[in-house]
Amino acid sequence: MTDSSPVSDFSESELIARIARHLPQTEEIELGPGDDCAIVKAGDGRVLVSTDVLVEDRHFRLDWISAMDLGRRALAQNLADIAAMGARPTAIVVALTLPGHTRVAWLEELAQGMGEASSAAGASVAGGDLVRGEVVSIAVTVMGTMDGAAPVLRSGARPGDIVAHAGRIGWAAAGLDVLLAGLGGGAAKLEPFVRAHLVPEPPLRAGIAAREAGASAMLDVSDGFLRDAGRIAAASSVVLDIDQDAIERFALELGEAGKELGVDPSRWVLTGGEDHGLLATFPPDTKLPGAFTKIGSVKEPGSGAVVLISGQPVQLVPGWDHFSG
Amino acid sequence: MTDSSPVSDFSESELIARIARHLPQTEEIELGPGDDCAIVKAGDGRVLVSTDVLVEDRHFRLDWISAMDLGRRALAQNLADIAAMGARPTAIVVALTLPGHTRVAWLEELAQGMGEASSAAGASVAGGDLVRGEVVSIAVTVMGTMDGAAPVLRSGARPGDIVAHAGRIGWAAAGLDVLLAGLGGGAAKLEPFVRAHLVPEPPLRAGIAAREAGASAMLDVSDGFLRDAGRIAAASSVVLDIDQDAIERFALELGEAGKELGVDPSRWVLTGGEDHGLLATFPPDTKLPGAFTKIGSVKEPGSGAVVLISGQPVQLVPGWDHFSG
Repeated sequence: MTDSSPVSDFSESELIARIARHLPQTEEIELGPGDDCAIVKAGDGRVLVSTDVLVEDRHFRLDWISAMDLGRRALAQNLADIAAMGARPTAIVVALTLPGHTRVAWLEELAQGMGEASSAAGASVAGGDLVRGEVVSIAVTVMGTMDGAAPVLRSGARPGDIVAHAGRIGWAAAGLDVLLAGLGGGAAKLEPFVRAHLVPEPPLRAGIAAREAGASAMLDVSDGFLRDAGRIAAASSVVLDIDQDAIERFALELGEAGKELGVDPSRWVLTGGEDHGLLATFPPDTKLPGAFTKIGSVKEPGSGAVVLISGQPVQLVPGWDHFSG
Repeated sequence: MTDSSPVSDFSESELIARIARHLPQTEEIELGPGDDCAIVKAGDGRVLVSTDVLVEDRHFRLDWISAMDLGRRALAQNLADIAAMGARPTAIVVALTLPGHTRVAWLEELAQGMGEASSAAGASVAGGDLVRGEVVSIAVTVMGTMDGAAPVLRSGARPGDIVAHAGRIGWAAAGLDVLLAGLGGGAAKLEPFVRAHLVPEPPLRAGIAAREAGASAMLDVSDGFLRDAGRIAAASSVVLDIDQDAIERFALELGEAGKELGVDPSRWVLTGGEDHGLLATFPPDTKLPGAFTKIGSVKEPGSGAVVLISGQPVQLVPGWDHFSG
């Protein structure tokens, strides 16, 4: 058998062996792949856990993304959930569905991308499941530790707090629209947006920095800036007032894509998700960690919208939050 | 909207609220659904984790199984992995893919089945992800604790040990063949096998009992008795010699299905998986826990097969272990 052989030519144990060699194990993994369970250290007596699934033709297209990048991407979004608690990732398990015709080399590259992304974050892919299905789907569960600290929840924002953000906003959404418009592989100036869509690069280390600086609330922006800002506001029973200037600064970075596609880039900023930047609130007078910039302030709850732009409610298209996963 | 409305009529947060009300949280869940991560106690400083995915039309057919039973089943197989380490489950996260036309009542029944199965095991569904896809797929990750004890691995079997089993063997495979032959919903005497296929009932409590009795190795039989016995043998560098009598006793229980389908039921016993019984080895003279019966003994490694039936190697169909998930 060769690297271009389909996975259906292999036994499950042969496939697992080919995957495992790309997955280095840290010393925090007491027992790695190969038994009924993996065992992971949880030194401070508790473990954080989050799960997400990526489905072919809904979250990614195989003609747009390499196996290596898909592996990186699948981990990035889960690692961002750990970062958003102010935590450190320790272990990852992956439940993978693959069509039988998938080339074994593709599977190994996927594992390589995962191994690389987990190592970069100081964590290990410690186990998984591999089954056949009609399409590729990747369910990733990541575990992490607070190392004895208190987690940063969504519910801790207080009136008077600073609203700040680390990472990109709207880049992944702009990149998706570039690809949908058939402009992928085109102008070099659009390439960074495409790249941001294919493999988001959440500011993973900024999560712990935010917690250490005293962040009062935090989440990773995964479903769109306004919607996620609304989640902090709702969980904390406050209003988040975002500076119009900040929105315009973010939109300015997307100017080239906006011009090319004839789109107002502020739409990508307000409703685009999947950059997995960290949106946080900090007590007044906090010296923000380097990755964060101030973008607004927390106000007393009112009777209207929970997210404002420079004091004004935002109009959105009806139905924009219907279940689409 | 009514219970027969499709999930595509709801927002993701509405769907999650409908799911969450069926998922009671134990006190071991420090932080349940609703933030970026759940937080689970891990009192002895480590956590066990296992993941499995069930895919529509590969592992289940929606015209054969109710949503409630599917929820129970998805948890059963993962809970068996925790039991197979001699551990206790604490928390479960579920990454769920659903077609947009799925009725919301079906989703709630699925959650109800999961809530029931997790509660019965003393654990909680503490988080998840919900996305749209062409088919239903359910990726379940379960975490557990050893409560300070040592885990029972696959690698601890020693020559002279007793081989023992708790639970059923071959029932799920027989039930699947009954359904495939179009005999589901037919004779009442076949119903227990169909039921065993739809919702396996692993002997979850027997896992801790086996560990407490000093089990030297253990796994749950999920891919077929011979293959899984071979895994203990390989991991422990020993030979498992299974009594022909024991195989015949198991086969006898499947007699009605065998007669109806014209099949030698010992095939179901030897190669059928998914009953998730516990196969374990114990030091000689161990008083076996009540759920276990002796079915063979561990021998010194030889140069031939690692699993024998009353001293004889077993002939199997070539290709039976190719990747099929």
